Amino acid sequence: MSGKQFHLNAFLLGVGHHEAAWRHPRTEAHRVLDVRHFQELGRIAERGKLDSVFFADGLAVGPRIKRNTLAVFEPITLLAAIAAATSRVGLIATASTTYHEPFNLARVFASLDHLSGGRAGWNIVTSAGEDEALNFGYDRVPEHARRYERAQEFVEVATKLWDSWAADAIVLDAEAGVFADPDKVHTIDFDGPRFQVRGPLNTPRPPQGRPLLVQAGSSESGKEFAAQHAEAVFTAQRTLAEGQAFYRDLKSRLPKYGRTADELKVLPGLVPFIADTTEAALALEQEFTDLISPDYALRQLSTLLGVDLTEHALDAPLPPLPSEHEIETHKSRFTLIKELATNENLTVRQLIGKLGGGRGHRTFAGTPTQVADELQSWFENGAADGFNIMPPYLPGGLEDFVDQVVPILQERGLFRTDYTADTLRGHYGLDPVESQFAPVRAEASA
Amino acid sequence: MSGKQFHLNAFLLGVGHHEAAWRHPRTEAHRVLDVRHFQELGRIAERGKLDSVFFADGLAVGPRIKRNTLAVFEPITLLAAIAAATSRVGLIATASTTYHEPFNLARVFASLDHLSGGRAGWNIVTSAGEDEALNFGYDRVPEHARRYERAQEFVEVATKLWDSWAADAIVLDAEAGVFADPDKVHTIDFDGPRFQVRGPLNTPRPPQGRPLLVQAGSSESGKEFAAQHAEAVFTAQRTLAEGQAFYRDLKSRLPKYGRTADELKVLPGLVPFIADTTEAALALEQEFTDLISPDYALRQLSTLLGVDLTEHALDAPLPPLPSEHEIETHKSRFTLIKELATNENLTVRQLIGKLGGGRGHRTFAGTPTQVADELQSWFENGAADGFNIMPPYLPGGLEDFVDQVVPILQERGLFRTDYTADTLRGHYGLDPVESQFAPVRAEASA
Repeated sequence: MSGKQFHLNAFLLGVGHHEAAWRHPRTEAHRVLDVRHFQELGRIAERGKLDSVFFADGLAVGPRIKRNTLAVFEPITLLAAIAAATSRVGLIATASTTYHEPFNLARVFASLDHLSGGRAGWNIVTSAGEDEALNFGYDRVPEHARRYERAQEFVEVATKLWDSWAADAIVLDAEAGVFADPDKVHTIDFDGPRFQVRGPLNTPRPPQGRPLLVQAGSSESGKEFAAQHAEAVFTAQRTLAEGQAFYRDLKSRLPKYGRTADELKVLPGLVPFIADTTEAALALEQEFTDLISPDYALRQLSTLLGVDLTEHALDAPLPPLPSEHEIETHKSRFTLIKELATNENLTVRQLIGKLGGGRGHRTFAGTPTQVADELQSWFENGAADGFNIMPPYLPGGLEDFVDQVVPILQERGLFRTDYTADTLRGHYGLDPVESQFAPVRAEASA
Repeated sequence: MSGKQFHLNAFLLGVGHHEAAWRHPRTEAHRVLDVRHFQELGRIAERGKLDSVFFADGLAVGPRIKRNTLAVFEPITLLAAIAAATSRVGLIATASTTYHEPFNLARVFASLDHLSGGRAGWNIVTSAGEDEALNFGYDRVPEHARRYERAQEFVEVATKLWDSWAADAIVLDAEAGVFADPDKVHTIDFDGPRFQVRGPLNTPRPPQGRPLLVQAGSSESGKEFAAQHAEAVFTAQRTLAEGQAFYRDLKSRLPKYGRTADELKVLPGLVPFIADTTEAALALEQEFTDLISPDYALRQLSTLLGVDLTEHALDAPLPPLPSEHEIETHKSRFTLIKELATNENLTVRQLIGKLGGGRGHRTFAGTPTQVADELQSWFENGAADGFNIMPPYLPGGLEDFVDQVVPILQERGLFRTDYTADTLRGHYGLDPVESQFAPVRAEASA
């Protein structure tokens, strides 16, 4: 059964992914400041039996706050509050390996996993932003390769810390006065070039063993990192052919790390505009496009490409761009946008409209059936193990997906009709994480 | 009215502060792993109209896990989950200035303040533990003076970050397409010996302006730091005379920082054993004392004193100890315990019994009226602006305090009968934090 069904993550951002969402009458912009809005989104996702919700993150205010909302809440604290309002849906947060200490980050994800009953996931990022570096004592962003080296070591430390308590270390024998068995709680004595961490972690083994590990960068280093560590990958793919190529590429990298195709789920992003007719869906998308502020969009595009376009003519094509290996930030997104503009021969204004929905992620406008068809097509044609649904406006766009598209997927047998697991790893059909201290385990996973 | 009433914080720890609490039939030890236990504690505190709940923290597993529970949850994520289950009670967490980056910590406290509607507080610690240092790449704990220098600079950065958004920076004009006014969002351009942080913070001004700042170290540096920054101080004082001396000392340091006595609330700790008669309360305390594991207590005492006592005879007095200026960790607690043992001529076994309730904090066994009398006496005799209530067992010990002692305090006019403010700062009778970008403000605080 699990081989025939796909996975759904709801990628949540303020009052919607479309950059003009907060200006549209279908949203209430002030809700970006209200935790209850996000708790409601968690409950809607859970109503739809979605695998997880996900919040991205950055560690700086960009130059864009005039024209768009920002993420008011830090994702891990926000997910802790959403955990309290939900019971089954997975909870994934972005956090940076470049600007945290591994002990602290391993700890808060373990805490989130404990307090949600095994629903925590970590989207591992290396923080490509120049403005982020400036908030942490750097003159400029550490270079791409060094960030990934640090990420490698960071994940190794975190993984060892999560595994530092054997699953049966907690004894809780009040009579004998034994809370934990110290022989089952281990230092990790990590001594690497960047990190020296004795351990153990100061919390018992998390319910999932460790949080689900997620990755979202599609650069060469990003893909290699994902193949080695990630259990789910969020990716921006604009056409079925590109999606298939990415999927094959990523899966082909798994064997060298001793991993099978099932151990990593590929979830391309989709920004769905849903309405009763195709025409109405396209008209709805156009309403949002019409609300884009060109000055904001130019700043956004400048950031994504690492080239200042704020004075560039809107009705001209992009200026000549460097190649991916020459830039240090957002490598894969850079190439996606460059190819989109070149292949479709777009002016900057046209490019802005295409990117407005999801910053490069695929936008699709159609009826619930058409959206379901699209997902089915990608799934059945080797481009996806599931999808990263990015509602253009919230909560309405998520409600429409959950109430109108999910039932069709369920009817077709493509998506679960109820949760069959209690943990995020379980939702994604992943085996439990074995403790190094208890390698033999009888149960197999569903 | 506020001049005549005191403040109450509930310091929460696992299933109780007494080191043997988890072994006593009044507790269920497995609840240390259950977030609902802590959400219930938050609701009980709120039922009693308490100012706040507080979770301490450390960044290592000590050698004590065999004999006592540990804090499973990281406090900030835990408080985010408690915020979702409560609406008024303040939420205070310990976090270390030695092992965090100021941008990250300022961010998560701002997030907690946003998602709780202005109820966040930060107990600022410099992390004295040797075992903590080893989890962050240090061979040994950074020395006391250097930790406090870093804390100074850290708090300065955090304070500037919280103040980087003017209160009216969010415009939310969907029609004009203006989310925020960039002219009201400011870089901080901090360039210190330890931290270089551009800012601004990537979240709007927190509802309280900044979290309540709390401090709990009573060393010379600790007191000076508190006088400069803290708005509430948790302190261990064993006698009224010591409490009065500490109170006078701390308040006398405020004028040099341009602060008045009202701007810093002193809250001595109290571990109350409550029963219908004095005899029953003393018997209850004895039940807990009898459950102490001497090997655990000796390790605990060794850690507090920085001297290995694990092989020391239980019925002998303490060995000769160094003086406070010779040690680098837990200076004030060291002196408290040393003086307690000397002044009362205690054997190690007797000392362990005295310390079992609250690791040096004052334990008091009595009827609800006697507990209320004690609090009133300290409050009216210049030793306290309020109290840090440390229930020896949970939830029962908190319930007994809230349901039996609080009503007496309310009847005597010593404690509020309902909340009169929405924020933690408001509960503590503190003025709103003015933005440097909006210095003129009409409203005065209650």
